[in-house]
Amino acid sequence: MIQTDICIIGAGPVGLFSVFEAGLLKMRCHVMDALPQVGGQLSEIYPQKPIYDIPGYPEVKAQELVDNLMKQIAPFSPTFTLGERVEGIERQEDKSFIVTTNENTTVHCKVIVIAGGLGCFEPRKPAIERLEDFEGKGVAYMVKDPEHFRDKQVVLAGGGDSALDWAIYLSDIAKSLTLVHRGETFRGAPDSAEKVVHLAQQGRINLVLKSNIVKIDGNGHLKEVHIAGADNEISTLEADHLIPLFGLSPKLGPIANWGLNIDKSAILVDTTDYSTNVEGIYAIGDINTYTGKLKLILCGFHEAALMCQSAFKHVFPDQRLSFKYTTVNGVNAF
Amino acid sequence: MIQTDICIIGAGPVGLFSVFEAGLLKMRCHVMDALPQVGGQLSEIYPQKPIYDIPGYPEVKAQELVDNLMKQIAPFSPTFTLGERVEGIERQEDKSFIVTTNENTTVHCKVIVIAGGLGCFEPRKPAIERLEDFEGKGVAYMVKDPEHFRDKQVVLAGGGDSALDWAIYLSDIAKSLTLVHRGETFRGAPDSAEKVVHLAQQGRINLVLKSNIVKIDGNGHLKEVHIAGADNEISTLEADHLIPLFGLSPKLGPIANWGLNIDKSAILVDTTDYSTNVEGIYAIGDINTYTGKLKLILCGFHEAALMCQSAFKHVFPDQRLSFKYTTVNGVNAF
Repeated sequence: MIQTDICIIGAGPVGLFSVFEAGLLKMRCHVMDALPQVGGQLSEIYPQKPIYDIPGYPEVKAQELVDNLMKQIAPFSPTFTLGERVEGIERQEDKSFIVTTNENTTVHCKVIVIAGGLGCFEPRKPAIERLEDFEGKGVAYMVKDPEHFRDKQVVLAGGGDSALDWAIYLSDIAKSLTLVHRGETFRGAPDSAEKVVHLAQQGRINLVLKSNIVKIDGNGHLKEVHIAGADNEISTLEADHLIPLFGLSPKLGPIANWGLNIDKSAILVDTTDYSTNVEGIYAIGDINTYTGKLKLILCGFHEAALMCQSAFKHVFPDQRLSFKYTTVNGVNAF
Repeated sequence: MIQTDICIIGAGPVGLFSVFEAGLLKMRCHVMDALPQVGGQLSEIYPQKPIYDIPGYPEVKAQELVDNLMKQIAPFSPTFTLGERVEGIERQEDKSFIVTTNENTTVHCKVIVIAGGLGCFEPRKPAIERLEDFEGKGVAYMVKDPEHFRDKQVVLAGGGDSALDWAIYLSDIAKSLTLVHRGETFRGAPDSAEKVVHLAQQGRINLVLKSNIVKIDGNGHLKEVHIAGADNEISTLEADHLIPLFGLSPKLGPIANWGLNIDKSAILVDTTDYSTNVEGIYAIGDINTYTGKLKLILCGFHEAALMCQSAFKHVFPDQRLSFKYTTVNGVNAF
């Protein structure tokens, strides 16, 4: 079991900056995210897009902001559980919490901070017969570690940027790479689409257009996918892995069942310290709501700072907080 | 009279960033500060000091942050009145305000935002007989424009960095430059002190140590200063200008008399929009207070964003505010 002071759910910019504010008060953090990398929406949806409203940055690329935040929190050595979705929390007798993910990772903490942005980004699942039977047994909705697919028979499904980018990338690693797409043209970047077609001409990608995967089979682990072509004729393909890439959609997810006061998919908080109605649980960033709320990253930063002052009382109930400015004292690493 | 939507009192980082948030909502700003340059404490007190707690900046020099904020707000063409202290505000019949400075500059605006930091940085005044009689008539406590002193007989008083730096700088410009210091050694940077001594040896600075200015005289304008030496003997020196440089101390100043609810030198605000008890007047940054308040620049940024949403109603009472993300729409300059 992972032990920490504060378990931060959500590795977007606000979750990450919380590590800094917590660190200044000597509180250790473990950060969790359902996505396989840090940065939240910024890294997942628009890494190369410029942001203009981060104070002090006339312009900054989303991924650059995430990288800078990672540098800023490095002195406080945060730990991470990525690519796993937090499922449940359990209050302990001493008021601490145990947080559990869908892969049974457990974190023991004194404070929970929900910095979940728009919620969990959950994969959109295509209508494929028996799909859920093979989740974790050959079926995955994101690529956590490309090496996992080395020398395997991999089938991707989709026609957007993710499908194109991973097809190109994995064609170098996999034993065979098939891309199944229901259309004839791609929604992704023309440049990537061209590359995929070129790799198909070289025989390095098996491109199956105007087709849908309709069923999958196997014996404890995925073994074959059944593909319906334009003429509805079914062909069968050997496959060790199937990765449907039809985008992500945000959902509040299991958090909705934790007894928190919720208003229109957002968690109601007290603006004094961004605490929820459950003692020891805070909500900051886009996932919370209050009178006057603005869904801006810079507002989440402020919420993180005030939250940490309050969280301190749960982490160190017997200590008096003395607030020091970093300009005077610098940043003292753990 | 200067016409604007929002008159921002205080050109520190929070006042400056307000121009950006206001600009996104098409509101024009005029920024005023008693200091002769923008940046507030950051530029005046610690321009070369690194700051560590600006989100997304593992480290940034104070002046660099100010420079970046100036770049960020440039598209919205803010106007400035610097080196003048706001003295009074007068409510007009149509609910707008007229703001007046100590030099009788007037600004007509619909909203006042007090982003005054620790308050006005007022010069510490030495005990010199008749000093206040000659303020603005040869006596000044800061150097707004060095050219003002070209070919004049200038006397500086003080032993810190300001006194040393200006002595070096003005020795090139003034007809004569005298530095009067009560001690024998300087509190300022050893490097600067060495330079001053060197310039004195060359006859370019008239260095008067272990001495105090005790009295000044003139006829409508400063004409001479009387200096008491270690032996208490008085000598008289011709002078067009006297600049006592004994540091600045923050004071709430005239703001204290505007009918605002104040608690321990800070202005009480509603955290929904950081409005004060006077309609149309907001207070953001270090100068305000509320339950949970932290005096952090990043908190002032958040306060600026929420304030602007509320100020919009005063500036455009008939328009509906539609909130747009800069990531989607970019920044549209005036």
